[in-house]
Amino acid sequence: MKVKVRVPATSANLGPGFDVAGVAVTLYNTFTFELMDEGLEIVGCPEQFAGPDNLAYEAFCAGAREVGLTFSGLRIECKSEIPHTRGLGSSSSCIVAGLVGAFAFKGRYDDRQDILNLATRIEGHPDNVAPAIFGGLTVSVNAETVTTLGIPVKNDYRFVALIPPFTLSTKLSRSVLPDVVSRKDAIGNVSHLSLLVASLINGHDEGLRIGFHDHLHQPYRGSLIKGYDEIMGRLEKDENVLGSYLSGAGPTIMAVIRADDLMGVVRLKEELHDCLDGWEVVKLEMDQHGYVCDYE
Amino acid sequence: MKVKVRVPATSANLGPGFDVAGVAVTLYNTFTFELMDEGLEIVGCPEQFAGPDNLAYEAFCAGAREVGLTFSGLRIECKSEIPHTRGLGSSSSCIVAGLVGAFAFKGRYDDRQDILNLATRIEGHPDNVAPAIFGGLTVSVNAETVTTLGIPVKNDYRFVALIPPFTLSTKLSRSVLPDVVSRKDAIGNVSHLSLLVASLINGHDEGLRIGFHDHLHQPYRGSLIKGYDEIMGRLEKDENVLGSYLSGAGPTIMAVIRADDLMGVVRLKEELHDCLDGWEVVKLEMDQHGYVCDYE
Repeated sequence: MKVKVRVPATSANLGPGFDVAGVAVTLYNTFTFELMDEGLEIVGCPEQFAGPDNLAYEAFCAGAREVGLTFSGLRIECKSEIPHTRGLGSSSSCIVAGLVGAFAFKGRYDDRQDILNLATRIEGHPDNVAPAIFGGLTVSVNAETVTTLGIPVKNDYRFVALIPPFTLSTKLSRSVLPDVVSRKDAIGNVSHLSLLVASLINGHDEGLRIGFHDHLHQPYRGSLIKGYDEIMGRLEKDENVLGSYLSGAGPTIMAVIRADDLMGVVRLKEELHDCLDGWEVVKLEMDQHGYVCDYE
Repeated sequence: MKVKVRVPATSANLGPGFDVAGVAVTLYNTFTFELMDEGLEIVGCPEQFAGPDNLAYEAFCAGAREVGLTFSGLRIECKSEIPHTRGLGSSSSCIVAGLVGAFAFKGRYDDRQDILNLATRIEGHPDNVAPAIFGGLTVSVNAETVTTLGIPVKNDYRFVALIPPFTLSTKLSRSVLPDVVSRKDAIGNVSHLSLLVASLINGHDEGLRIGFHDHLHQPYRGSLIKGYDEIMGRLEKDENVLGSYLSGAGPTIMAVIRADDLMGVVRLKEELHDCLDGWEVVKLEMDQHGYVCDYE
């Protein structure tokens, strides 16, 4: 018996929702787990990730300890669509998949709250793992346990990911953040995220543009990404872009457009053509399921 | 012709929603405006407020300038239910009433967005004036114009106001706030307010208790209010209290209970009997209308 787990990519922060909000999108990593008599075999991923420090393997071991699963060998087969270290939740997808894999061998593949608590402990923050687990757009609070709530998004949007050819490590991207911020900036983010959440729920597209503004992480991280200011400035001028933000810790920049804006990608490529040397432009939908698990 | 304006009390901040969130509640101030040939006559309020620095009069003048209303004399009749300087929006009610009064003499009594912009300019913050204008529970962002959105609250709650016999000036209450805060506290409030908003919308009462926690103003203001820590501690222990917070700039403390918790007030009075010497305990509902204007 094999366990197959498909996990969506996730775009965290959503501007002011730093470490709080995230959305699952339609790019997927798929992992197949098979218990073996001995050894560890990881296939389908770059060689440097094929050892015992593989994140999916580490998470599988943590999940196995949690559910009391003993095993002597494991084979993991990976199929990746989510680009690495680009702010689209590829690490979180590994963590979630590993946990779900182990849970599934004990029949507990749908214990999503337990998986959320464990995944947050491993990842450090719930904002990517929560939407990878539950799907949709979520907000999370990490107290003794993790509380995650889904935001019922009224209108149909598309997320256009502008994915640079270079990576940005989450560690570096965190290191530039200040430990203290002005009360004004703090309240700015509180107000913008509430407006964002309320606008998404009410289908009030006019509120999104202000709602996506952030003061707590983007101003510090932008300088790490070549072309960031220019791109964000042009997106701001496109009145069909409802909002734009740095996806996760970057470097991917996300632009939100209406589902019926069919020319959106063509237009953005044109508007940004001299900024996007080597960048990929990928239009994504919201994923509404979170991870999907199957036995084979 | 007279213009009669009834304005609800408002309870701002709602814990983490400092300067952002507010709710209209069922206590009302009513103002009747009548144009006269000359002079200013203000009746029904304490004598120290009956002069030209009366807030409703000042707002009426600002509103008159805005709508191009000229007048040579004015009579204002006040009927107050909202206690003064207690964090229940009595000042905001005066500002809103004055503006609506002036607008109404030009037939523009329902231009709520214009009234919101003006009222925010006078008050400095939208969190009390927005619910006084629109009713219900609102979140607001104060950028070039003020954007306010209503939060559709799923369940039926009651707001139990614990109103001390002493006042606390908003100015003093603001003076104790630090200009910088830790990034951790900022993100704490961002996450708690999003959880609060999402919980109210989803009817997820379990999320309210964490959702009402604040790090940006209550920790600094509590020491200005005799008995604050003791009362908040006991409210926290009452599992039928879904959340508690400092109303506006204080000193009123608000406890949120379910509508069907009919013994709520009796129980709270008992639990807090040795803390509430001279305090009033008033159970309020959400007001869903905001101001109401009539011609007489």
